[in-house]
Amino acid sequence: MTINYPNGQSFHDTRSNGKKSARLTTANYADRGMSLEAEINQSNQFYREHQIAVVHKKPTPIQIVNVDYPKRSAAVIKEAYFKQASTTDYNGIFAGYYLDFDAKETTNLHSFPLANFHEHQIDHMESCYQMGGICFALIRFVKRNEIYLLNGPDLFHFWERQFHGGRKSITQAEIANHGYLIRPQLNPLIPYLDAVQIIIDKSKGDLE
Amino acid sequence: MTINYPNGQSFHDTRSNGKKSARLTTANYADRGMSLEAEINQSNQFYREHQIAVVHKKPTPIQIVNVDYPKRSAAVIKEAYFKQASTTDYNGIFAGYYLDFDAKETTNLHSFPLANFHEHQIDHMESCYQMGGICFALIRFVKRNEIYLLNGPDLFHFWERQFHGGRKSITQAEIANHGYLIRPQLNPLIPYLDAVQIIIDKSKGDLE
Repeated sequence: MTINYPNGQSFHDTRSNGKKSARLTTANYADRGMSLEAEINQSNQFYREHQIAVVHKKPTPIQIVNVDYPKRSAAVIKEAYFKQASTTDYNGIFAGYYLDFDAKETTNLHSFPLANFHEHQIDHMESCYQMGGICFALIRFVKRNEIYLLNGPDLFHFWERQFHGGRKSITQAEIANHGYLIRPQLNPLIPYLDAVQIIIDKSKGDLE
Repeated sequence: MTINYPNGQSFHDTRSNGKKSARLTTANYADRGMSLEAEINQSNQFYREHQIAVVHKKPTPIQIVNVDYPKRSAAVIKEAYFKQASTTDYNGIFAGYYLDFDAKETTNLHSFPLANFHEHQIDHMESCYQMGGICFALIRFVKRNEIYLLNGPDLFHFWERQFHGGRKSITQAEIANHGYLIRPQLNPLIPYLDAVQIIIDKSKGDLE
């Protein structure tokens, strides 16, 4: 599963969205210009197809104001607005564990601004964590080509710090130190469940 | 938590949507004309506020075709279409368990048509069940004022039966026999987690 196919040919074949394929075949895995969301969706599809995990991105919440019902054709939404999500973007199940996470990108080199999160997203993750779920953030430093998984308890710590005179961001060094570097590969593109497995193993070790 | 307040006053006060309140105060809990979805959403809110479970309804998936970005005001979606959901409507975490379920209503008296489910919804629930999740359907027989929780394995059995010469529905008697009758109450309106707790206890008993 961690084979890094040199020219990305197989990878090309498994893509569901063919539009960017030509560009992808010559790019390396960490710098292909795909959005983090698209890469995670593709990774989740791989995990589902291989019965490793069932994780989906939730649809974007929309406030519908006006809908047309034309005769003999599909209903058309004529007026609607984007709503703020009340939870995180992704959740699902892996190895019997409830997973809940969000994915964020920054073009900063040295820190990740906490303003990327809404308070209710942190609250939601904390609630899920209290109930035994595994909650985390996937954070990409775009200009560094680095993706980290930052586990819930660490994220909550840095979030709280800002309300006690601390900085309103997490430094890249802190994330590198506390988080798990996720190395993009062929399939799944972003093998974040490897880090989740480590978190699970550690939590079991703590119980023994 | 199972106190049935006779005039529903407290219940009235905790409603987030005030529009139907006047009607609610005089109705009994099982026959108030609310949609099953609205009642489940309210129950989930109660469960969240009391830190019993974190369950949310997923937003309706929408295919956005055209968006206007007026100056100095929010983006307006001008053309969009409803998409078919690829999963179930609800998921979350309870007592460390991943929950995944759908809610369906029928005006039939004696049977629940399996056409209410899409195959990919059943597939999704089976995948989650295989990974240790608790998956089920909440089924309301509107004219009987009955709500049942039908556990995944039973639902999968009845679903499969139709492909082996069986009926394309589940009889009310089968659902009453295999499922758990959920009695509407004050708060939460639909205490479906009581049945989930029984399922968890049974599964633990099976392991011992």
